[in-house]
Amino acid sequence: MNFDMKEAIEVLERTPQSLEHFLSGLSDGWLQCNEGEGTWNATEVIEHFIEAEKHNWIPRLETILQEGENKPFPPFDRFSHLNQKSETTIEEKLQEFKTVRAENITRLKALVDPAVHLELTGSHPAFGAVKVRELISTWVVHDFTHMAQIVRVMAERYRVDVGPWKEYLGILNKKG
Amino acid sequence: MNFDMKEAIEVLERTPQSLEHFLSGLSDGWLQCNEGEGTWNATEVIEHFIEAEKHNWIPRLETILQEGENKPFPPFDRFSHLNQKSETTIEEKLQEFKTVRAENITRLKALVDPAVHLELTGSHPAFGAVKVRELISTWVVHDFTHMAQIVRVMAERYRVDVGPWKEYLGILNKKG
Repeated sequence: MNFDMKEAIEVLERTPQSLEHFLSGLSDGWLQCNEGEGTWNATEVIEHFIEAEKHNWIPRLETILQEGENKPFPPFDRFSHLNQKSETTIEEKLQEFKTVRAENITRLKALVDPAVHLELTGSHPAFGAVKVRELISTWVVHDFTHMAQIVRVMAERYRVDVGPWKEYLGILNKKG
Repeated sequence: MNFDMKEAIEVLERTPQSLEHFLSGLSDGWLQCNEGEGTWNATEVIEHFIEAEKHNWIPRLETILQEGENKPFPPFDRFSHLNQKSETTIEEKLQEFKTVRAENITRLKALVDPAVHLELTGSHPAFGAVKVRELISTWVVHDFTHMAQIVRVMAERYRVDVGPWKEYLGILNKKG
């Protein structure tokens, strides 16, 4: 096990700022490209990050702390952002992500004492018993997964343009 | 083909700043973890970015513009940074990456007129004829590849900690 609360928060507090520097001001070509039908563009990934901040991590954490395994987690629809045709700019979305993430880190620090709460368990609808430590670790790795997705989606746009170099570019040689 | 010089530069100028916001101040646990023997940690990826700025993209571009296919590209050792045990901090490395990248973008703009030079060809030691457009596209996708590598390497650190959620986290279910 490598989990450490302070180190987990180091990542959680950096993700929105990093993505803000990466995506703000980019052309629509980069923000709206995807990997084909049914896949997300970078803008949709940011919308998903915001939904998860609002409806996934903290509500689940609160359920564990208040209910233990007595009550399964509140549902989280991983596709909900696709149904809300949002008119806000990418800069506004990134600002919202930054704000809700900062609020959630404050909430996390208030809710969880790592010396006391990490091994408490709740009931995941598919997995059964899951621990606070596993939930917070997943929050961190979920950031990594979707940052990797954003650059993979953008790389896809230049698949043909790179010519023979495609062979050396790992990101063009996998999906996931 | 999707390549556009202005859009390519949008990415090239954002990568160092985004990584600076992501990696500066992180604990050594995050900066020094890797995916096992022979793999790179996040710090080594930044060192590789710096080497490529110094010895790969612009020297190759200059070779195409000056020599065409008459002279193969100068060699680039993708592992050179592993032989120089650097004592600089991650913040110093990120600052150096930012500086050399900014200089190279200035150089790129001075060297390449997209209306004139994109289809010029040089001689790659393994691939044979390659175009300026392909080289610059590869520079961009090389950024994406190594940004994806950094988050994948960091995610690996929590492989066990996420517990059953591993199944939902694409980044833990592939290599590349």
